[in-house]
Amino acid sequence: MSSQSRPRPRYAYLGPTGTFTEAALRQVVSPEEAQYLPQVDVVSAIEAVRTGAADRAVVAIESSVEGGVTAVLDTLASGSALTIQREVLVPVSFTLVARAGTDLGAVGRISAHPHAWAQCRRWLAANLPGVVHVPATSNTAPAALLAGPDEGLPFDAALVPPPAVDHYGLHVLAGHVADNERAVTRFVVVGPPGDQPARTGADKTTLMVHLPSNQAGALLEMLEQFATRGVNLSRIESRPIGDALGRYSFSIDAEGHLEDERVAEALMGLHRVCPHVRFMGSYPRVDAPAGQVRPGTHDADFLAARRWVQDLRTGAAH
Amino acid sequence: MSSQSRPRPRYAYLGPTGTFTEAALRQVVSPEEAQYLPQVDVVSAIEAVRTGAADRAVVAIESSVEGGVTAVLDTLASGSALTIQREVLVPVSFTLVARAGTDLGAVGRISAHPHAWAQCRRWLAANLPGVVHVPATSNTAPAALLAGPDEGLPFDAALVPPPAVDHYGLHVLAGHVADNERAVTRFVVVGPPGDQPARTGADKTTLMVHLPSNQAGALLEMLEQFATRGVNLSRIESRPIGDALGRYSFSIDAEGHLEDERVAEALMGLHRVCPHVRFMGSYPRVDAPAGQVRPGTHDADFLAARRWVQDLRTGAAH
Amino acid sequence: MSSQSRPRPRYAYLGPTGTFTEAALRQVVSPEEAQYLPQVDVVSAIEAVRTGAADRAVVAIESSVEGGVTAVLDTLASGSALTIQREVLVPVSFTLVARAGTDLGAVGRISAHPHAWAQCRRWLAANLPGVVHVPATSNTAPAALLAGPDEGLPFDAALVPPPAVDHYGLHVLAGHVADNERAVTRFVVVGPPGDQPARTGADKTTLMVHLPSNQAGALLEMLEQFATRGVNLSRIESRPIGDALGRYSFSIDAEGHLEDERVAEALMGLHRVCPHVRFMGSYPRVDAPAGQVRPGTHDADFLAARRWVQDLRTGAAH
Amino acid sequence: MSSQSRPRPRYAYLGPTGTFTEAALRQVVSPEEAQYLPQVDVVSAIEAVRTGAADRAVVAIESSVEGGVTAVLDTLASGSALTIQREVLVPVSFTLVARAGTDLGAVGRISAHPHAWAQCRRWLAANLPGVVHVPATSNTAPAALLAGPDEGLPFDAALVPPPAVDHYGLHVLAGHVADNERAVTRFVVVGPPGDQPARTGADKTTLMVHLPSNQAGALLEMLEQFATRGVNLSRIESRPIGDALGRYSFSIDAEGHLEDERVAEALMGLHRVCPHVRFMGSYPRVDAPAGQVRPGTHDADFLAARRWVQDLRTGAAH
Repeated sequence: MSSQSRPRPRYAYLGPTGTFTEAALRQVVSPEEAQYLPQVDVVSAIEAVRTGAADRAVVAIESSVEGGVTAVLDTLASGSALTIQREVLVPVSFTLVARAGTDLGAVGRISAHPHAWAQCRRWLAANLPGVVHVPATSNTAPAALLAGPDEGLPFDAALVPPPAVDHYGLHVLAGHVADNERAVTRFVVVGPPGDQPARTGADKTTLMVHLPSNQAGALLEMLEQFATRGVNLSRIESRPIGDALGRYSFSIDAEGHLEDERVAEALMGLHRVCPHVRFMGSYPRVDAPAGQVRPGTHDADFLAARRWVQDLRTGAAH
Repeated sequence: MSSQSRPRPRYAYLGPTGTFTEAALRQVVSPEEAQYLPQVDVVSAIEAVRTGAADRAVVAIESSVEGGVTAVLDTLASGSALTIQREVLVPVSFTLVARAGTDLGAVGRISAHPHAWAQCRRWLAANLPGVVHVPATSNTAPAALLAGPDEGLPFDAALVPPPAVDHYGLHVLAGHVADNERAVTRFVVVGPPGDQPARTGADKTTLMVHLPSNQAGALLEMLEQFATRGVNLSRIESRPIGDALGRYSFSIDAEGHLEDERVAEALMGLHRVCPHVRFMGSYPRVDAPAGQVRPGTHDADFLAARRWVQDLRTGAAH
Repeated sequence: MSSQSRPRPRYAYLGPTGTFTEAALRQVVSPEEAQYLPQVDVVSAIEAVRTGAADRAVVAIESSVEGGVTAVLDTLASGSALTIQREVLVPVSFTLVARAGTDLGAVGRISAHPHAWAQCRRWLAANLPGVVHVPATSNTAPAALLAGPDEGLPFDAALVPPPAVDHYGLHVLAGHVADNERAVTRFVVVGPPGDQPARTGADKTTLMVHLPSNQAGALLEMLEQFATRGVNLSRIESRPIGDALGRYSFSIDAEGHLEDERVAEALMGLHRVCPHVRFMGSYPRVDAPAGQVRPGTHDADFLAARRWVQDLRTGAAH
Repeated sequence: MSSQSRPRPRYAYLGPTGTFTEAALRQVVSPEEAQYLPQVDVVSAIEAVRTGAADRAVVAIESSVEGGVTAVLDTLASGSALTIQREVLVPVSFTLVARAGTDLGAVGRISAHPHAWAQCRRWLAANLPGVVHVPATSNTAPAALLAGPDEGLPFDAALVPPPAVDHYGLHVLAGHVADNERAVTRFVVVGPPGDQPARTGADKTTLMVHLPSNQAGALLEMLEQFATRGVNLSRIESRPIGDALGRYSFSIDAEGHLEDERVAEALMGLHRVCPHVRFMGSYPRVDAPAGQVRPGTHDADFLAARRWVQDLRTGAAH
């Protein structure tokens, strides 16, 4: 029984069962292969890895349907080092559910978290004109109520994340409810530093960088460390450092991998000019195809340039 | 009865009673002078202004203790125009409360939202070593439980926002509980466009800007529109536009007021080179003293420069 | 006698008769329509306008066959204001001349200014292999010698500017002698400020700019004043200011006309951030077709942007 | 006779005897230690090194009193590689000379090259008001005339470079004649590539760089390769490439030495993004004290940054 001798990895995530985060986790590893450890909060999920209670955590890092993104960035940025090992996209799409026997035509009141409602407004106006919104405190809360004792609920149906349907044994009135069928939430898998995912050619590197000062131009100067090496950014967010008003750190996703010469040289530049840089992982990007690598910024270009300067120094080139 | 002829303004905010957002609202207007309309969610608070159900909304725009910041930015960026009229800072500081009769020394289990717990960790370790964390689903939830019927609660005390103390009639064990006494949450008051706050000399302007492309250098090019006019940024956050993976918009706080020439010219530059710019208000900044205005970027410098070029055109100068 | 009532304009230029500068002057105005005033030096040509001895001067501003470019820039930059009213291109091409009766096959020694020799080296190697170079002190000096008394000259033929052929009555052995048939020298017509040439849509503006400091980044900051308005540069030369080692001024040709909004706004930016800016004229460019105007930098874009900000200020736009 | 077995080095320079270039050459090596090979032209001086007729050449690279700077840059930029090994400054100061017996008070007409006249205008106005300028064709021409047979010269005195005084045995009326006592001409010693002067801590590196395109921003992008490594420029000049109108190359002096890490990395950046880069030597700068090295750009900073990235790659750092 080798499966006993090798314990299943433990994944902390924002619970309860049925959340979008669980949908992300299912893309990473099945419940058979791993222990799912639902947490009350993204901070708790991350801290579970730091304390050793979990091996990895799955948390949203860009989302308009599930909270905590700000807390994720802040929590990753301070405390002991963790690195991002993978990103996962989950479509922002809801399932309209009810108790068995409810007909779509009879739905007059729908329970939904306000974020969910905002994402489905146009669908609802087109398909259920006049339907009334009953706010829920979370995406899964109305699922639990529908699955509970048949007391007089103040609503007829609910918008819930797809993973909640099976778990709570709900009746589906409509699937793929969403106004913007391309909207996605981006999750990341974080773990202790160590196993760096190998370069794939379509990667992303996440950094936390402090600015040397809040003078005009300091932000530009930092970004030029990327631009001069042809490294594109796919995300940037300033965050107050908190120990003094007006000072800021930046959470950044750069295109490319630590093993790419252009990323490595940009990192060296940041290390020289910024008071603090935290490397938070290089991992395959799934949110977009790899951008075109700019001419002059392939590994071969960096190697040729280094060789040329070495030859100049030894007199072998002019 | 003059108070009847002039109805009190209605303020939507993230409820329930007792939140940090309520603390922000109290700085803006007292409950006697305004109607407080607690909302289940920040999106609902903003939409209440759009539908006319409220005159203004108070929402967090930078916070590590109360959620929804991402949703605030997204909701303000789309839909009908609203402008920011004021910003308000609330210290990130909790009150440790219990039922009457509870002694600090007897506290073994504390209920707290995980964000709250994270902010007070060091204080707790120093003052209540070994105390156990009982996660709460919101900052005010444990306050309501303490105020409720005296059934066996799974905790002895709770960390709650200061405004919750009076409302729920709680017993204070310790005030100003916080690891970082300078940490603050930043809230804004949003309302329909129209009454622009006058320039004070220490102002801030909030913008939503789309990038012309996701090519390398596009972000730099946009930021240079600020830098060449000496306009500092105090916040920048990229947000996926959502209609196509990889395209981004930027939420930006710039130092200065629409009436400042340097801000006006930077806005003109953005209008020329960016496919979309939304002006979201100029208002007095309270989160930091006014930065030094760079030489050459005072209003008088812009006016002198304009006059010089006009004189060159008419031949009055060389 | 209307020609008496209106005196012919006087043009100072680098003489003597037969220079490339004269070829430039002939493109501007014929000897019948103007007085040609040959000068011993470009500085003298420019000063002749300042003293009133001439109405205009024609001087080389970019050349590899006729000297004085550095002196032209320095002389224009200091002293009373003069503006550039026109630019003229002259192909860098020589005529191989001799006395009547000399055959190309019999040429063993050629007199040429070293600059001229350098421009024709490959042609000579192909057509007159083994021919010997006899250095001349100017382009026209050997023409004068060939036209002089038939004493034993130390050469058989000479490379001279095409205008020298007729003037000195020389025998042409070969025309259009040049290694690079596209090489040109650029001349400008300078005169007192006043008559600004009208905008043509393919113009150039010449400036002299001092840098605010010699700190790193000062040059970049100055150039960004052009780049943020989409103004291309076609020439830049740093020149030591001379009153203190290490400080520099910059002579710059920018694409566009003072009447172009993008040029006007760039000039305003320079006026704000640079300790000294001298406008030296906007005039039609002939050295290259007009560059593509970048999207967002047409006059209409600037006017629309200005109107938008004005509407924001009055509340007519959001 | 060891001096026979080791031939004296041969130095080509702009002659004839008595020029400012000779003054520069005397700073480098005395006439006893080297052969002085006067040339008719700077191009000839440089080519003498290429053909092996000279070991080194001394040529002006920034000057307002002696011509050929443009030709120097162009000649160095094309043809076989030469490197700059040293720079030399010569004060721009003239000697007013005459024949023996001439009294300063009796001077009514002065021969001077127009560049020389321009540099002494104020001195002459103050000391010899009303004196008449007789243009000379070079700085040394009037010295030769004064030293010649005593025929009726059209002038009484001449402004000549100090080295001409002794050579032509002239009578000094006034020394150190100059309006700007700090003005200098900058010369360089060029030779075949090979012996690279060692780093002194106050060095300069000369480069010739082609721009990847003439699009807006290409110049900025090139300059950012210097700025992001904290490398200051002390000179920049665009030069038309000549094979197509509108394309430009840039002659650049950067502060620092090839052996400085910040210069080496900037060179690598140029090598990657520019179609052509020619390294023309690192040598001690004498025209200004060494600039302050910007924090984060010392060699130690580059080495620490490189080590950090290597440690990230091997997992030894986070």
